[in-house]
Amino acid sequence: MSTGNTSADNTNKVMLASDYQEGAHPSIIAKLAETNMMATEGYGFDAFSQHARHLIREACQCPGAEVQFLIGGTQTNATVLDCLLRQYEGVIAADSGHVSVHEAGAIEADGHKVLALPGMHGKLTADQVERLVMDFEADGNREHMVAPGVVYVSQPTEYGTLYSKAELTALSRVCHEHGMRLYVDGARLAYALASQENDVTLADLARLCDAFYIGGTKCGALLGEAVVVPNPSLIPHFFTLIKQHGALLAKGRLLGIQFECLFTDGLYGQIGKAADEKAQRIVEALRKRGITLYCPCPTNQVFFIVSNGQMAKLGEESVYSFWEKYDDAHTVIRYATSWATTDEQIDRIVKIIEEL
Amino acid sequence: MSTGNTSADNTNKVMLASDYQEGAHPSIIAKLAETNMMATEGYGFDAFSQHARHLIREACQCPGAEVQFLIGGTQTNATVLDCLLRQYEGVIAADSGHVSVHEAGAIEADGHKVLALPGMHGKLTADQVERLVMDFEADGNREHMVAPGVVYVSQPTEYGTLYSKAELTALSRVCHEHGMRLYVDGARLAYALASQENDVTLADLARLCDAFYIGGTKCGALLGEAVVVPNPSLIPHFFTLIKQHGALLAKGRLLGIQFECLFTDGLYGQIGKAADEKAQRIVEALRKRGITLYCPCPTNQVFFIVSNGQMAKLGEESVYSFWEKYDDAHTVIRYATSWATTDEQIDRIVKIIEEL
Amino acid sequence: MSTGNTSADNTNKVMLASDYQEGAHPSIIAKLAETNMMATEGYGFDAFSQHARHLIREACQCPGAEVQFLIGGTQTNATVLDCLLRQYEGVIAADSGHVSVHEAGAIEADGHKVLALPGMHGKLTADQVERLVMDFEADGNREHMVAPGVVYVSQPTEYGTLYSKAELTALSRVCHEHGMRLYVDGARLAYALASQENDVTLADLARLCDAFYIGGTKCGALLGEAVVVPNPSLIPHFFTLIKQHGALLAKGRLLGIQFECLFTDGLYGQIGKAADEKAQRIVEALRKRGITLYCPCPTNQVFFIVSNGQMAKLGEESVYSFWEKYDDAHTVIRYATSWATTDEQIDRIVKIIEEL
Amino acid sequence: MSTGNTSADNTNKVMLASDYQEGAHPSIIAKLAETNMMATEGYGFDAFSQHARHLIREACQCPGAEVQFLIGGTQTNATVLDCLLRQYEGVIAADSGHVSVHEAGAIEADGHKVLALPGMHGKLTADQVERLVMDFEADGNREHMVAPGVVYVSQPTEYGTLYSKAELTALSRVCHEHGMRLYVDGARLAYALASQENDVTLADLARLCDAFYIGGTKCGALLGEAVVVPNPSLIPHFFTLIKQHGALLAKGRLLGIQFECLFTDGLYGQIGKAADEKAQRIVEALRKRGITLYCPCPTNQVFFIVSNGQMAKLGEESVYSFWEKYDDAHTVIRYATSWATTDEQIDRIVKIIEEL
Repeated sequence: MSTGNTSADNTNKVMLASDYQEGAHPSIIAKLAETNMMATEGYGFDAFSQHARHLIREACQCPGAEVQFLIGGTQTNATVLDCLLRQYEGVIAADSGHVSVHEAGAIEADGHKVLALPGMHGKLTADQVERLVMDFEADGNREHMVAPGVVYVSQPTEYGTLYSKAELTALSRVCHEHGMRLYVDGARLAYALASQENDVTLADLARLCDAFYIGGTKCGALLGEAVVVPNPSLIPHFFTLIKQHGALLAKGRLLGIQFECLFTDGLYGQIGKAADEKAQRIVEALRKRGITLYCPCPTNQVFFIVSNGQMAKLGEESVYSFWEKYDDAHTVIRYATSWATTDEQIDRIVKIIEEL
Repeated sequence: MSTGNTSADNTNKVMLASDYQEGAHPSIIAKLAETNMMATEGYGFDAFSQHARHLIREACQCPGAEVQFLIGGTQTNATVLDCLLRQYEGVIAADSGHVSVHEAGAIEADGHKVLALPGMHGKLTADQVERLVMDFEADGNREHMVAPGVVYVSQPTEYGTLYSKAELTALSRVCHEHGMRLYVDGARLAYALASQENDVTLADLARLCDAFYIGGTKCGALLGEAVVVPNPSLIPHFFTLIKQHGALLAKGRLLGIQFECLFTDGLYGQIGKAADEKAQRIVEALRKRGITLYCPCPTNQVFFIVSNGQMAKLGEESVYSFWEKYDDAHTVIRYATSWATTDEQIDRIVKIIEEL
Repeated sequence: MSTGNTSADNTNKVMLASDYQEGAHPSIIAKLAETNMMATEGYGFDAFSQHARHLIREACQCPGAEVQFLIGGTQTNATVLDCLLRQYEGVIAADSGHVSVHEAGAIEADGHKVLALPGMHGKLTADQVERLVMDFEADGNREHMVAPGVVYVSQPTEYGTLYSKAELTALSRVCHEHGMRLYVDGARLAYALASQENDVTLADLARLCDAFYIGGTKCGALLGEAVVVPNPSLIPHFFTLIKQHGALLAKGRLLGIQFECLFTDGLYGQIGKAADEKAQRIVEALRKRGITLYCPCPTNQVFFIVSNGQMAKLGEESVYSFWEKYDDAHTVIRYATSWATTDEQIDRIVKIIEEL
Repeated sequence: MSTGNTSADNTNKVMLASDYQEGAHPSIIAKLAETNMMATEGYGFDAFSQHARHLIREACQCPGAEVQFLIGGTQTNATVLDCLLRQYEGVIAADSGHVSVHEAGAIEADGHKVLALPGMHGKLTADQVERLVMDFEADGNREHMVAPGVVYVSQPTEYGTLYSKAELTALSRVCHEHGMRLYVDGARLAYALASQENDVTLADLARLCDAFYIGGTKCGALLGEAVVVPNPSLIPHFFTLIKQHGALLAKGRLLGIQFECLFTDGLYGQIGKAADEKAQRIVEALRKRGITLYCPCPTNQVFFIVSNGQMAKLGEESVYSFWEKYDDAHTVIRYATSWATTDEQIDRIVKIIEEL
């Protein structure tokens, strides 16, 4: 999440402030128009939603999974974590994790503590988690403390970095050895799945996690996140709890139709691939120009460190996201690509970078 | 809310189970398609949302009002009531009110008691409310009790009935004389505003209420509810609290575009009027046929009492909502009309009723 | 709970406003003095608490029960119900139940709805509960509603009435047949156990309930309630949840010592018996004088209906509790006896009643 | 909070594991016995509580303050913070603060985030707080984040260290300049007030803080904490909110009598002074023996670093608190003195230390 340099007139600029600045992938809009007059049941009992669930279960190679469609990321995290956590438990997360900083206290509003650990480019390690748990278990006062109950990671992270299959497997092992659950926030999952550096599949997620979500909002949908619970008995009455959290859409078809689109003919994969490839062109241009990346950028987000002069020049022709001050003379900024980014836009950005 | 007789094959039946069974009014779909490729800021800071807010403030004749777009009804009620209630307060509502029964405990999940009063066709009276408050204030144990803090009413009610301007004015007076706030759930507000029997305008609501919402989901939008807070200082940091409740849409434009449509060229009024008129044709047919209405039906919902035989016949050619058992031989069912209902459908329904 | 007529000068009046108006039974005070200088572990790990737990398990004939000492009634109800209820569940209670009206919304503050049913002299019937559950299970919208999860009853009730063993057995059966739990609030349990009309033992409670508490505060202790969970696996990490609810006493010995006293040499039984007998002398006097009881009064609380003139006379020589207006000319008031009530006080009260 | 080496037989050992291991100061026990048979009103409306409030207001030189008696520390912190925080705010605390780690998530269970900052020997600085607030206010995403609303400090801290008047004044200034409130946890306040190094009076606390509590449980009472709110309008309906949090004692006299005792004839001061002096004798002995203090120890808690061999020797004749491993060969342990500690016990401890 971030704020683009959008106060000035942005006409004719290349807009790369975020991956949720346009509407939805055109095939989604087309399908919404095409199905508009059909009367269906509400609350996700329509045939579109049922079919979308089926497609997702297949993609996850997990025929027994419960799949529910929620609306947005914060809502999904708050709802699922409230379902996964017992009252005496908290959720371990990187200090840069969305649940740690950018959900306005939604997790705590539901009664749960976020146990923040310092992340490395947004990532936690199994070792860190295990150390926290071992320390907790060894603490004479542990019964006066919040027990670690769930580990929250995002794939890709808020910094666009990736967990490898080995890393996720280690996290999953630590969780399950210590009676915890593993939850993966996949707000931008399309960009992880499509990354050249990725070795984690949907089936891996379904095998390693206790719950995860496949992001729609930031991956080409108007809105929507598909929660997958590989073992549904873990969350009894999930539907009612979604309703209680205000996360149940009356016209559930709106979510069903979109995820049906995304999981038909490989669209979700294509959206991720196209955006990742465009982002990698920016990465390459930055490297050539000698501009330092802030962190590895294997997905659709490119974080890099520019001098204030460079930032001003970039701002003349593009809209980026301000990320944070690096030092007095430098700033970390971000470009994010999406299904809506064109080759022409990337050509322009590459040229601007070359001329910095 | 209800369950239609949808288990059987519904091909060729007249679908009147609810007013949210189709997509969205065609002009909304068209506007979404047309604006799809524009890049905008997120979280409701886009120009569509700003313009929609302006249009709503004008329609409410309340230029200083805060207008925020949320996603669904339960979410809106839970969020706004959590903002309006202090911790030691509860919300007075009719026992049939949506917040009392059909929100899966969302109000209580946020920490607030619903103080239910018996409703008459879904309505509360100012006298009832005043009596509750006076009893509370006279109670020696009142400091051990939940204080009444907000009165919740729906316009139209869950039974499609209407508060008159005099009734709302009386409720508003009681609330403000006793330090309470008045909140109106307008999930189906279009059908109230357009009703022949209605004398309450948006400007009246803005003048009499402390907060209310203008329903989108059930009035022609894909999703969305516009919350109006006439005096914004009543809810400081409303934006952050919306975020905390998981009610902030990343692509806020989706809400802005829809409410811009609904409040341009009188569309919201037309949607209400068309549906109300069609419902009144059903009402008239039922009266002619001598079938008893369950309650006054001045808006788009028609509740009526049928014998089990009649219900079976209606079910052969239409989809209605089962409401409740009336007695062993009779049932209360509902037809709901909407922007999507056609004259031909009503012709068929009228004919079926005549032949019952 | 109630407010006595205590604004005037009460010197020399017979004080029967409540059963918690004096300190503690003298043997408790003596034991506190005697053990004062012993150093013990905190948080209930001291030997007094351990021994008191053992005595209570024996009295309940339930050697495997978990016994935890909490501080007050509202706190105990809120803590235990929060532990017994899942997030999608509410608690069924009589509309006069302490959790329904006199806990300032503590149950809702923890996120749970109270599903109130009309009580008869404070009591629920198994039939009422079963009807509510069957209606819920048959409701097409039940997944949008709060599920009944726990039944709360008080023994004796807030009106001093008693559940028979048959009635409690029926409630227990309904609960367990429908996947619910039964919880008994025993704030005044001593007076139930000692009543001539009682046939429910501690062992019955341990057999029939999923949790209950043995009241200390209103039965001769300075403070304290002993929660019994016959099957401890029902509430994992109960200790931590008690801490989280602010219900864990640092000097847990204060609770342990008191319950050790109460469950040694039959003191708890004697306290109940003495108070009940004194209350029955008042009941008899009222009957002789032709004054109507408000409800059956088999325990230590006597509710009766007096004319306003009679009330004034009683107020000259005694302190009672105002309960509620009966009609313009009559009022329901209450006398409550306790371990501290003397025969001389009752003699005076009986004489006053005779002369009304 | 800590765990003493209490598993072995402790007969004849010097018990210094904590300052809440005995009952209560003998004058409290005497007063409880003496007043036991008096009948009083409940819930803190008795004359003892009223008088105790008066004495505390006088001691704080704050005649308009609201004074309420709660039961324990975690409960008091959770209740007061829930009253002081708005829904969109969190509480800033040192990472070692009681609310950060040892309240089993009580703050979060009430819906609030703890914004932890690294403490220095348990203390926060005004600079740290100001930096956090400035960073928050400068953050482009601040509306998606928890706003700092209250600063929590403990006096003395969990490490027995003290804030000077200058430090507290600076914290108070930062809080009020940024619209925040300052709350002081005085669980062990007697030991701060009596310390040779202290320059903060009760009147200073009443002047600088928005709320604080005067600890009873760890300062000679059986239980009880006196909350002082200098400007009562800051917390409307505080009584009801105390009830809602399960923190209202039915026999409120038990708290009133104890605080009346503590604030009569300077008892609270004497308890602090006696314990501090005894602790300083231990400090001096450790210094002479060349044993390193873990932090400055100006109050009744002495934290020091011993080799494992030394720890074993100390454990043979005394009960200390294990605090944390320092390194493989060393451990941090704590002695805590109280009103119950005798000169003879200190003589023995000093001798043991000399012989280490």
